[in-house]
Amino acid sequence: MTAPPSDPAAQALAERVVARMLEHDEFSRWLGLEVTHLAPNAATVRMTVRPEMVNGFGVCHGGVAFSLADSALAFASNTHGRLTVSIENSIRYPAAIKPGDVLTASAVELSASRRLAYFDVTVRNGDGETVALFKGTVYRTSRDLFEHETKHE
Amino acid sequence: MTAPPSDPAAQALAERVVARMLEHDEFSRWLGLEVTHLAPNAATVRMTVRPEMVNGFGVCHGGVAFSLADSALAFASNTHGRLTVSIENSIRYPAAIKPGDVLTASAVELSASRRLAYFDVTVRNGDGETVALFKGTVYRTSRDLFEHETKHE
Amino acid sequence: MTAPPSDPAAQALAERVVARMLEHDEFSRWLGLEVTHLAPNAATVRMTVRPEMVNGFGVCHGGVAFSLADSALAFASNTHGRLTVSIENSIRYPAAIKPGDVLTASAVELSASRRLAYFDVTVRNGDGETVALFKGTVYRTSRDLFEHETKHE
Amino acid sequence: MTAPPSDPAAQALAERVVARMLEHDEFSRWLGLEVTHLAPNAATVRMTVRPEMVNGFGVCHGGVAFSLADSALAFASNTHGRLTVSIENSIRYPAAIKPGDVLTASAVELSASRRLAYFDVTVRNGDGETVALFKGTVYRTSRDLFEHETKHE
Repeated sequence: MTAPPSDPAAQALAERVVARMLEHDEFSRWLGLEVTHLAPNAATVRMTVRPEMVNGFGVCHGGVAFSLADSALAFASNTHGRLTVSIENSIRYPAAIKPGDVLTASAVELSASRRLAYFDVTVRNGDGETVALFKGTVYRTSRDLFEHETKHE
Repeated sequence: MTAPPSDPAAQALAERVVARMLEHDEFSRWLGLEVTHLAPNAATVRMTVRPEMVNGFGVCHGGVAFSLADSALAFASNTHGRLTVSIENSIRYPAAIKPGDVLTASAVELSASRRLAYFDVTVRNGDGETVALFKGTVYRTSRDLFEHETKHE
Repeated sequence: MTAPPSDPAAQALAERVVARMLEHDEFSRWLGLEVTHLAPNAATVRMTVRPEMVNGFGVCHGGVAFSLADSALAFASNTHGRLTVSIENSIRYPAAIKPGDVLTASAVELSASRRLAYFDVTVRNGDGETVALFKGTVYRTSRDLFEHETKHE
Repeated sequence: MTAPPSDPAAQALAERVVARMLEHDEFSRWLGLEVTHLAPNAATVRMTVRPEMVNGFGVCHGGVAFSLADSALAFASNTHGRLTVSIENSIRYPAAIKPGDVLTASAVELSASRRLAYFDVTVRNGDGETVALFKGTVYRTSRDLFEHETKHE
């Protein structure tokens, strides 16, 4: 959360949204995920691949890299405070991931309309090598993530 | 593993490959994954969504459904005994998945050439509703999964 | 348009929609596309690959197979009479396509919610070999395709 | 072809490859495609949407934008002189494309191994608005595009 916010209100909303999400996100907790950067429509997360995350060939299970990227997408795409859900995501694996690797996933919004938004998430290892190319297409519902609190105020 | 094998040798190889993979697949173990059907180029797996698998909105994390499907793909695409790796996978989410749901993922090969193969994996919940549509494109290396054993014999 | 319609009103609407679309679809006309089957949420189209459709290596340009599948998707996904647009489409190419090949693309709906629908389109050559695996995710707007006519009545 | 080549031999090979491809690429000719930039592993192409390129709703057929991006990918991914073919491509459509729009598609390589390479292609209209996000995964064969000429020399 190091970038200077260009719009303090938008930045504050982004941080409030992601703090709320992290409270409930049990699977990201299991992954050991940490949010290292957050801004409106963007998020970077980090985790270390542990021995219990390998597949049948002893390398990191593809689902683990996908999950890290998917969490980055979820954080980035909900920063504006309206519930946003994945429609379709894909992942390509340019290089193998091994236990002990420190992975960083950065989600950026490429384009958005009222209902749809398009993101890329790049996953790199500790050497800066790209190990996964993830893209996500999301649907923005009209539901306010804080509607109940708002009504109570 | 209920389907009558049409080719007993191919079926035996498929079972030997997947048994070997399961020995090392720590992440599938964490998922609670169970192989319920296996045949050459096809696999069905099952798991129950646990509370520690939810995302920030209390529904099943997208990465969990992806991981289940990805394991089904890995088992199905390696049944012929040559190391096969994912090139690109994608997932679409027609319906939400909740804690307690029993998910079944069935991988089938649609088409294959010498080096590439194309799979679909359908994930259904306990009511038979389709909750995820996954597709995988894989690369078949020339590496024999049992080359060391073979040499030792 | 050979399948016996199970719901005559839905079938009549499907045929009315696609007839209207074909009137304006100049690119499908250039492709030489012909609708050979139509039903609610499903369409099959056919074309022959011509010499002016090849790429720099003398085989059918990937965009031509994609376009045929995309037209099949557009017809199938609009049959219910509400304007439906593509969000994201992808294509995999299991086999090369050559000039002279007669291609058939069949679109089927896998799953749908109020706003989103998920289709697969399979493209086969004249020997029945699968040459392209296309999938489409579409967004159903609330706009009635015949709203002006309806208002005039 | 405006960028100063950092490696003159690689740049010369890229230009020789694409000149050869353009000689035979009848469909890119029909599209009215022009190569505006070329470098090793990168290409930018341009075309104008004509009235015969519309779909049943009077906007540019999705297959036309895909085809333009696919040609950019083909040029970029063959610049090193080995025959390279598409494994899987996808496209997302952030904004509608209309007849008369001047489209530019830029292909860049994100990552590559010996056999596989991963590209993004961004399609923009004349206002610089992103109208299509395309990605391509390609397979590099071992076939030299100029093997016959080489043998004759």
